[in-house]
Amino acid sequence: MSLTYDEFYNGRTGLTVGVNKILFSEETPYQKVEVYETDTWGNLMTIDGMVMLSERDEFVYHEMLSHVGLFAHPDPRRVLIIGGGDGGTAREVMRHSSVQQVDMVEIDEAVVRASKEFLPEVGDWNNPKLNVLFEDGIQFVKDIDDPYDVIIIDGSDPVGPAEGLFESNFMQACYDGLSENGVLTAQTESPWVSDYHPSMKKVFSALEDIYEVSKMYLAYIPLYPAGMWSFSFASKGADPLSNETLSRVEERFNNFDTELKYYNPEVHRGCFALPNFVRDIID
Amino acid sequence: MSLTYDEFYNGRTGLTVGVNKILFSEETPYQKVEVYETDTWGNLMTIDGMVMLSERDEFVYHEMLSHVGLFAHPDPRRVLIIGGGDGGTAREVMRHSSVQQVDMVEIDEAVVRASKEFLPEVGDWNNPKLNVLFEDGIQFVKDIDDPYDVIIIDGSDPVGPAEGLFESNFMQACYDGLSENGVLTAQTESPWVSDYHPSMKKVFSALEDIYEVSKMYLAYIPLYPAGMWSFSFASKGADPLSNETLSRVEERFNNFDTELKYYNPEVHRGCFALPNFVRDIID
Repeated sequence: MSLTYDEFYNGRTGLTVGVNKILFSEETPYQKVEVYETDTWGNLMTIDGMVMLSERDEFVYHEMLSHVGLFAHPDPRRVLIIGGGDGGTAREVMRHSSVQQVDMVEIDEAVVRASKEFLPEVGDWNNPKLNVLFEDGIQFVKDIDDPYDVIIIDGSDPVGPAEGLFESNFMQACYDGLSENGVLTAQTESPWVSDYHPSMKKVFSALEDIYEVSKMYLAYIPLYPAGMWSFSFASKGADPLSNETLSRVEERFNNFDTELKYYNPEVHRGCFALPNFVRDIID
Repeated sequence: MSLTYDEFYNGRTGLTVGVNKILFSEETPYQKVEVYETDTWGNLMTIDGMVMLSERDEFVYHEMLSHVGLFAHPDPRRVLIIGGGDGGTAREVMRHSSVQQVDMVEIDEAVVRASKEFLPEVGDWNNPKLNVLFEDGIQFVKDIDDPYDVIIIDGSDPVGPAEGLFESNFMQACYDGLSENGVLTAQTESPWVSDYHPSMKKVFSALEDIYEVSKMYLAYIPLYPAGMWSFSFASKGADPLSNETLSRVEERFNNFDTELKYYNPEVHRGCFALPNFVRDIID
């Protein structure tokens, strides 16, 4: 007998992962949170039967959700993360020496509790820059008084509590909560999963209407459906591909303290190259 | 009861695909070739229990294996494909109006036979440019008299009959069989599968030793292990990322007759951006 974690994304097509044992399983007021010890990916967290991260591949998602926006911003100091309860996005953000404060607004304390216990290497919980709030991110963004330089939307899939994170009025509220040179990044699902195309279209059309600059970018995430994941970048002015930005990325990357495993200046540029079928989804 | 096709790449981690029925299954003198009718990917061919292509996702592999090299070559006329028995690579190559002759050397006639019957849209078998030979590709390359402008290595994984395609002396024979501005591309496995790292290292170190220019590039292939696939580009001079090449790619792409689904000039450039952990495998 052997345990497996199975997740389907296209008919009966999906991922199967060998599981040694279940470490955590809780029906919270918002969702079902589970952590498995796997045979080869370290510990793996799922929410409502969808992989959030494994210890072995989480660097891809967290580096790409954070650094593409942070390196593109001229001087990121105050950063807001909506969701991100495993702590990985905040960890990457706080690697930028310019960053002074990170407010992480996670609706579900169980995600943080499970992560601290079973994914202890993912978060940098004792970092004095970090301020964790257990609140509804959608409401939080509406009430921003002191604007942020970067807002990162690190929610789960657009079903359940994260559904509102894909709405136009939320994207507008983020815009209003950003400072002058503000940058937003968000996870926006797999282009290979046609069920998500309506959400992707909705987000990108909202970003295009609201922000001065908006673009999609991609990363390879082995345990996410089809291994291809999309993100959105939007800003009040900074173009992630302008010569000015690319020079800054290059210079700041060369002086960066941490050795990254995925992101680098070539990847910064290359991740915005969209295959035609991906471009067609949002055009 | 339900049929599935299951393929593991990392412990008990892998892919599962819903199967309606088995269309073809044959132990050939070289390998086991199978074709399944799947629930959502069209027909799917496997060799020795490894996905080769599905009708729905084959465009990624075939466009990226072909066009990155063909567009980088100043004037590709004569093209050799080693392997490629499903016909998809030859189809993409023959879309280039400069191409006059394609020799496809497939060791196993069963692959072509199964493809013609069960993957009829993949190959362009009646194209007068195409010359199919059922021979050992390794021997064929050693015996080249009339050199090729582009050689494409479209073999299966480096176990069984395709093992020799990852050897240094084969890469040297390809070099000797290329014309003055010759370009070679090859499929070189998934960076997420550590079992293949020795083969990847071997190929890239051989290419670096033998060719004037050598680089790795990547594409997102949902039904391949971890969804990330590597390819190699090598040439006697053409740099796929030089300004001269990029201008030519842009111009030729704008005049290209066929609408492609994956490859475009941004992808041509972006696919060479390697995440740090991928670069580390071959450095």
